[in-house]
Amino acid sequence: MKIVCTKSSLIESINIVLKAVSSKSTMPIIECIVIDVQDTIKFITNDMELGIETIVDGQIIEKGIIAINAKFFSEIIRKLPDDVVTIETDYDYKATISCVNSKFNIVGKCADEFPFLPEIVKNNSIKISQFSLREIIKQTVFSIAYDENNKIMTGELFEINNSTLRVASLDGHRISIRKVELKDEYDNVKVIVPGKTLMELSKIISDDLDKDVEIFIMDKHILFEFDQTIVLSRLIEGEFFKIDQMLSSDYETKVTVNKTELFNCIERASLLVRESEQKPLVFNISAENMELKVMSSIGSMNEELNIVREGVDIIIGFNPKFLL
Amino acid sequence: MKIVCTKSSLIESINIVLKAVSSKSTMPIIECIVIDVQDTIKFITNDMELGIETIVDGQIIEKGIIAINAKFFSEIIRKLPDDVVTIETDYDYKATISCVNSKFNIVGKCADEFPFLPEIVKNNSIKISQFSLREIIKQTVFSIAYDENNKIMTGELFEINNSTLRVASLDGHRISIRKVELKDEYDNVKVIVPGKTLMELSKIISDDLDKDVEIFIMDKHILFEFDQTIVLSRLIEGEFFKIDQMLSSDYETKVTVNKTELFNCIERASLLVRESEQKPLVFNISAENMELKVMSSIGSMNEELNIVREGVDIIIGFNPKFLL
Repeated sequence: MKIVCTKSSLIESINIVLKAVSSKSTMPIIECIVIDVQDTIKFITNDMELGIETIVDGQIIEKGIIAINAKFFSEIIRKLPDDVVTIETDYDYKATISCVNSKFNIVGKCADEFPFLPEIVKNNSIKISQFSLREIIKQTVFSIAYDENNKIMTGELFEINNSTLRVASLDGHRISIRKVELKDEYDNVKVIVPGKTLMELSKIISDDLDKDVEIFIMDKHILFEFDQTIVLSRLIEGEFFKIDQMLSSDYETKVTVNKTELFNCIERASLLVRESEQKPLVFNISAENMELKVMSSIGSMNEELNIVREGVDIIIGFNPKFLL
Repeated sequence: MKIVCTKSSLIESINIVLKAVSSKSTMPIIECIVIDVQDTIKFITNDMELGIETIVDGQIIEKGIIAINAKFFSEIIRKLPDDVVTIETDYDYKATISCVNSKFNIVGKCADEFPFLPEIVKNNSIKISQFSLREIIKQTVFSIAYDENNKIMTGELFEINNSTLRVASLDGHRISIRKVELKDEYDNVKVIVPGKTLMELSKIISDDLDKDVEIFIMDKHILFEFDQTIVLSRLIEGEFFKIDQMLSSDYETKVTVNKTELFNCIERASLLVRESEQKPLVFNISAENMELKVMSSIGSMNEELNIVREGVDIIIGFNPKFLL
């Protein structure tokens, strides 16, 4: 195998596939990036939950395939001069990486044992802009649970209803729900996508409104395809919580308040709240203003915010961390 | 006590005095900033090794003095809106911090037990630009030792010889020496300044060539005065190592090489060196080029650099971490 790529195109592709590299595993092969050179140069990684394939821009001089430890490979490429890089392997999996006057030899592995991504029969895809998908993930993923005892809470509901996509997550304390109107109509479907998949995905899709992600939903997998990359993830099996039944729509009080002012005020109040004390942040809501109060062993704070209120006065306490 | 200051001037002064706040101590009073309002507003901190006093810009409405926990005080001020801040204390050391609609109450302490900085009889001062002092510290402080068993190695030699200031540090593996010509002549003096003092000092002096630091050297203390701030530090007692005897000046080989190229090359080589292995970076120096080689369990690297060499060929190995 022999390829010639610019350092920058290698870095770009490494940054994408690193998201699916296992950091601690008992299988050294899944700590590797597979460089698969056939008609294209492909980088492939798979941590058994999440798999990524991306096409690397570059020149193919000789076909071949090798697995290289992802950590060493990415560290070496990052430190090379900003120039053209040649990667060459020989029959016993020794990889030579050369750039200007610098030459590295590292030992690679045979890729035969690598868990390659399964061939996916692609059905109809759902189209959404990279920008929207990133926003949706950002606005919901913070409220997943990290408790592996309740696997379903570690994922997010992706629910298609005609042309509406609804994404939801909950951790027992709070629910986040985001709806978005798609351009086309689709068959109804409901799956649970691992939160980790979505976090990693949101780091590698762009915030470009004009570039789409195509989403393919299968029985046990979900596949995201964009630019020159595919991200394949297992789905979480089971049924998501019935969130419609958890929410009532007959509120007694509704408050409109400036988001930045409220956020800054809660941040200030949080300074006085220590995890161990669990002091609530008290909102005293009256006709025209809302007083925020907190009292702890460190001291006390109060602050008034201008609001528009509909409904009745109320005094209510929250955990400021969840509000933030 | 009552003062009115802008948030930005409070932050600026807090950032300076925080450098001498003890993070873990058995005396809660030295975790405090003392706000001393007489004819000026002064913030004072002292961790028993290092003491700082700085004058804060602001308006004095009522004189007084209080000690406030530095961590809470700085966190609260940082989170306030960017506006005018009023700090007021009452007879039982309750401090009220108000800014726009936000009001904090925290409990302060009587400042009586605070270890105020001793009155220093200032002798002749040594003048040096803030820029130079920062440079000197940066270029020498990395080679102090952190081993408290050899106290002298945790400090740096400051030696005045007529109009020359020589600063040196060593940790048993390497020595850094920096000489600088001062504008005036001074009495000869030789003291050891704690490395920690110099590190903190270099963070709060500016990189301005036109602003001076005045240095006062006393029996047991060194005092740095600049802008509206004084930094007072204990000296380390004892005699510094005889560094002149450690260095010989009859070299057999002298190499001139591009600094950036060498630095980048060593950085690359370091990737293959694991702490535990202690593999040396080998320099093979010949008439026109220098080959750098490293070989470890991860792989090998070699790279050639153009050099100008005087003297004889040599093959020599180094710890790449020290070279960097």
